[in-house]
Amino acid sequence: MRERQLIQELIAGLPTNQNTLVPAGDDCAVVSNGDGASALLLKVDAVVEEVHFRRSDSPRKVGRKALARCLSDVAAMGGTPDSALVSIGLRGEEDQDYVRELYEGLAEIARDFDVAVVGGETVRNPGGLFVSVSLTGRACARGAVRRSGARAGEAIFVSGCLGGASAGHHLEFDPRVRESLWLVDRFQVSAMIDVSDGLATDLGTLLQQSAVGATLDEAFLPISRAARIRAREDESAKSPLLAALTDGEDFELLFTVAASDAVDLKDAWRTQFPEVPLSLIGRTERDSGLRLKQKDGVRTLGSGDGYDHFQQS
Amino acid sequence: MRERQLIQELIAGLPTNQNTLVPAGDDCAVVSNGDGASALLLKVDAVVEEVHFRRSDSPRKVGRKALARCLSDVAAMGGTPDSALVSIGLRGEEDQDYVRELYEGLAEIARDFDVAVVGGETVRNPGGLFVSVSLTGRACARGAVRRSGARAGEAIFVSGCLGGASAGHHLEFDPRVRESLWLVDRFQVSAMIDVSDGLATDLGTLLQQSAVGATLDEAFLPISRAARIRAREDESAKSPLLAALTDGEDFELLFTVAASDAVDLKDAWRTQFPEVPLSLIGRTERDSGLRLKQKDGVRTLGSGDGYDHFQQS
Repeated sequence: MRERQLIQELIAGLPTNQNTLVPAGDDCAVVSNGDGASALLLKVDAVVEEVHFRRSDSPRKVGRKALARCLSDVAAMGGTPDSALVSIGLRGEEDQDYVRELYEGLAEIARDFDVAVVGGETVRNPGGLFVSVSLTGRACARGAVRRSGARAGEAIFVSGCLGGASAGHHLEFDPRVRESLWLVDRFQVSAMIDVSDGLATDLGTLLQQSAVGATLDEAFLPISRAARIRAREDESAKSPLLAALTDGEDFELLFTVAASDAVDLKDAWRTQFPEVPLSLIGRTERDSGLRLKQKDGVRTLGSGDGYDHFQQS
Repeated sequence: MRERQLIQELIAGLPTNQNTLVPAGDDCAVVSNGDGASALLLKVDAVVEEVHFRRSDSPRKVGRKALARCLSDVAAMGGTPDSALVSIGLRGEEDQDYVRELYEGLAEIARDFDVAVVGGETVRNPGGLFVSVSLTGRACARGAVRRSGARAGEAIFVSGCLGGASAGHHLEFDPRVRESLWLVDRFQVSAMIDVSDGLATDLGTLLQQSAVGATLDEAFLPISRAARIRAREDESAKSPLLAALTDGEDFELLFTVAASDAVDLKDAWRTQFPEVPLSLIGRTERDSGLRLKQKDGVRTLGSGDGYDHFQQS
């Protein structure tokens, strides 16, 4: 928590210049190319051993994940990823085979998304492996989709299924780049974010930045099979609902469109991406805050204690 | 050494795309903005505690250095730095004040060079602090200055003084951004690199990539006062000449221009930058390899044993 405050404080003091269109604080920064026409998306993200991955995880998957996280952020702005820079911290020479495999996993997903890796640096980091990836992207013709554009009365959609990332999904997820490009080309997406810290937190951010609130409907939340299985097999695990609301690293698209577009969008999406669920999970409202409609009433999803109920349910 | 080989190997296997103009391997990568006109420079560089800086070093200076290193790389391509992304690894909350100061140092030099810091991320890194900076820049109208454009018979120049970086200079150097922009605007610079691994190594790289050789003249090498003082005070220190040839982290501009421009350039530079020495240190030649002309003859600066002589001299 204090780390989040520190970041907020640091970000507020960062210098900008005449090319800065969107400073730090959205999924990506947006920077003018200086030609007045095109805009560049910029994102950096680092993963650290024993924090974001385990030493025992496949290095290919770790490399894949390091880039995939940035791809998800470019997707969340409706952009096309373009060029990546990679900075890897190595304990020592014993890590060389590991790093070779890590690069292979990273290069593989880069090729899948036509991303060039134009800088590959390694440094010694006695404390353990880290991988920092910076990614550029191009904004779509309509401009980057911000977190702040939602208005009251819009439909809230989320792609894929939520919860259960810690069951391995976080190393294997497909960043929704193609889905996002298709989406922003055909529909007026008012706000978008990727679900990296959990639905409740990330939707909370989008709502706050848009100065609106929302009510979600429990019945429509796309709870992942992994979250259901884990809850059944492990008594100490989160309830499936709680996992769907609070598990991080889902890396799905969470966005708002005009309510009048909702049915058309659902139909067109199903035809285009039959294997990726798209769920209409609620509506934005004038009243700030995030609420959840359940069978027995409406609950406010606050910070902290608001979640105890869902664990017991 | 094996680390260098690993990087070479990894870089060779990195994917590129239709926008990649210069892939990994020069001071910066060069990427098309897709509009056919402007080109983007991209660089990533990380510094790690106990490798690139000490825990006891001023955090302000560490933050300054982390960005300054990238600024030096953009300068070495003749570019204008634009936007930076910063990724910081923290051990824990005890690092927060440290990081606050580190950001202040980084923001300060960013403002000095009109660089926006558009991403500021912190992650936990139990092993110690690291700072990874990615920087974008714009190539000059003539295009990015590569390492590979030198031809035989050209003049080799270096800015500033060489050697002695470990005496503290590495935390305080001024990246030669303004000098480089002035230079490429007025003179046809055929090849350029920044001196980060030592004059002999970096000139060796420039020569190899340009497929030429060179002879330097010992009498013209701008040996720093710090290197002379250190050699006098510490018997185990490098000789001043050896320090000038092999000390890393000088972060000066090393470049080639047509011999016919050499006198004009020296005069114009002295007027423009009276406080920054510019030295004509030698000439490029058809014969590959790097040689040093001394009072008693010409020596080849090879790998390894070639340097023993200079330590004893």
